[in-house]
Amino acid sequence: MSIANLGSFNEILKSNKSFTIASHVDPDGDSIGSVLSLTLALKKMGKCAEPVIIDKIPEKYKFLPGNKLISNQFSSRSDVLISLDSSDINRLGLNEDIRDYGNIIVNIDHHKNNALFGDLNIVDSSASSAGEIVYQLIKDKIKIDNDIAINIYTSIITDTGSARYSNTTPLCLRILADLVDIGVKPDYVSRQVFEKRTLSSIKLLKLALDTLELLENNKIAAMYITQEMLEVSKAMEEETEGIINYAREIDGVEVAVLFREKEKSVTKVGLRSNEWVDVSKIAEKFNGGGHLRAAGCIVELPINQARAVVLNAVSAALADNGGILCKE
Amino acid sequence: MSIANLGSFNEILKSNKSFTIASHVDPDGDSIGSVLSLTLALKKMGKCAEPVIIDKIPEKYKFLPGNKLISNQFSSRSDVLISLDSSDINRLGLNEDIRDYGNIIVNIDHHKNNALFGDLNIVDSSASSAGEIVYQLIKDKIKIDNDIAINIYTSIITDTGSARYSNTTPLCLRILADLVDIGVKPDYVSRQVFEKRTLSSIKLLKLALDTLELLENNKIAAMYITQEMLEVSKAMEEETEGIINYAREIDGVEVAVLFREKEKSVTKVGLRSNEWVDVSKIAEKFNGGGHLRAAGCIVELPINQARAVVLNAVSAALADNGGILCKE
Ligand SMILES: [Mn+2]
Ligand SMILES: [Mn+2]
Repeated sequence: MSIANLGSFNEILKSNKSFTIASHVDPDGDSIGSVLSLTLALKKMGKCAEPVIIDKIPEKYKFLPGNKLISNQFSSRSDVLISLDSSDINRLGLNEDIRDYGNIIVNIDHHKNNALFGDLNIVDSSASSAGEIVYQLIKDKIKIDNDIAINIYTSIITDTGSARYSNTTPLCLRILADLVDIGVKPDYVSRQVFEKRTLSSIKLLKLALDTLELLENNKIAAMYITQEMLEVSKAMEEETEGIINYAREIDGVEVAVLFREKEKSVTKVGLRSNEWVDVSKIAEKFNGGGHLRAAGCIVELPINQARAVVLNAVSAALADNGGILCKE
Repeated sequence: MSIANLGSFNEILKSNKSFTIASHVDPDGDSIGSVLSLTLALKKMGKCAEPVIIDKIPEKYKFLPGNKLISNQFSSRSDVLISLDSSDINRLGLNEDIRDYGNIIVNIDHHKNNALFGDLNIVDSSASSAGEIVYQLIKDKIKIDNDIAINIYTSIITDTGSARYSNTTPLCLRILADLVDIGVKPDYVSRQVFEKRTLSSIKLLKLALDTLELLENNKIAAMYITQEMLEVSKAMEEETEGIINYAREIDGVEVAVLFREKEKSVTKVGLRSNEWVDVSKIAEKFNGGGHLRAAGCIVELPINQARAVVLNAVSAALADNGGILCKE
């Protein structure tokens, strides 16, 4: 892959000194991994680089080299503010004007619905992850060390589900190979990212499985998680991650939906599909977005009402497609 | 990697016409994938090639191109019998003399304890899978087509747990990349291999999670599955596979135990450890066996009594080891 706008990016790098590297709230392996790999790379280039994520870093990502550098608020104005893995500037969780914190805004992302809010936009929806784009941007500028490599490796395996999703390209597999050559231990990283369960997450899983329902001839599988279920299981918000896959992986299911009660009248909706439904289109109906096979939205309704309207939209999408394959 | 003995292999290919390609009973993705990829490749070279696995091919591997060619018994004598992914000739499940079915025996494997039973042994314990070795053997001889590629891809992702295990090398990641270039869809193959859940298996998982108990300061996690739970969930025996990992992956757990009621007074016990307990030693106390990190035994006691005696032995093993690391 050749990065469009690489020249402009190199110019910005050359002529500026201080960088704020930010990513979205509700951080995941790609947002954290891409922020940290770019931060560490910029430091290697002799720049001032401050990583910012306005949210709690999930416990399981605390193995990532450099994670202690991450600040949970924007501080001073930088020459350049780089947004990573965020389709929209609001995803950074900043209430003030973004311009207060960067003279130049660089937007690096792989979401196809990216709002192109940057002065420079490096958006490649064919990239598996933001970390993959970071790799392309830095590989010819510095010697990638093990700390940077682990962060990029984590980005890619998080967003590809360890090379299982449709965004697993020859390029991202070759980058993984390069990173293992540098010294990344695939089993170590995978254990941190995929095989750490807390007792509370097991309890939450059990409660969520109790809510599983199958609709439309088993083509739709839906589950929900209420605030009460989080309290009973003592699970953290982040421990809901991955639960939606239990619904998606059931034989015959095309669309999986997970409803999470955020507040009494705010429901977060996760959507996944297996083969032909474009769930980003469903999410967009509720002002959300995402990818063909994984998308989400927030519906300002109590969980039961949110379930009704969203599941209606999912049924409609299934009917709309009418069996016509809409593959990538 | 350069294959040792590649020259001799090429000689054997050149001077022979009929090949039997066999692998072990209790087939998995690597044995089936390597047998089929080599079979299809030999056919492309104009050879007679008959794949043999003396066992039932699991449902989930029936998506593999060529699977219908597999015979479940050896028939006539071939010029060459190629054994794949089998550390010992007995693993082929053949009661007669192997020499009845091949003039020349070629042994292709990646198990480090391979008995080197072939006239030609191509054994590479650094290879992720037998399929990876097949790839190396055929890549310069034929144009690898999509059918062959899917089989090799399946071999590699099965034996590396989708690039999660310590045998995930830069080489095997680059082979995966080459195979995606040829046309393999990673999401499609991964869905067949890893993501087929039945509704009954989800129900069984929920019931099993209900039985989870933690002992010895959370170092032991135990679960059980009764005949009644199988009936209620309508799950098959084989759907208990993987459930023990939910116990093993809990933070802080060293030994996971799953008790399965086979009959009123027969209990099957699965044991797993994470870092330092040798569970094969525990299993041996009950006339079972296995590996350092995965073992099993059958106890002729009702499930509740079996739980008592085995959990006692596990506690004793934890105490015995007394914190002394016994790593691989
Ligand atoms: Mn991402
Ligand atoms: Mn194997």
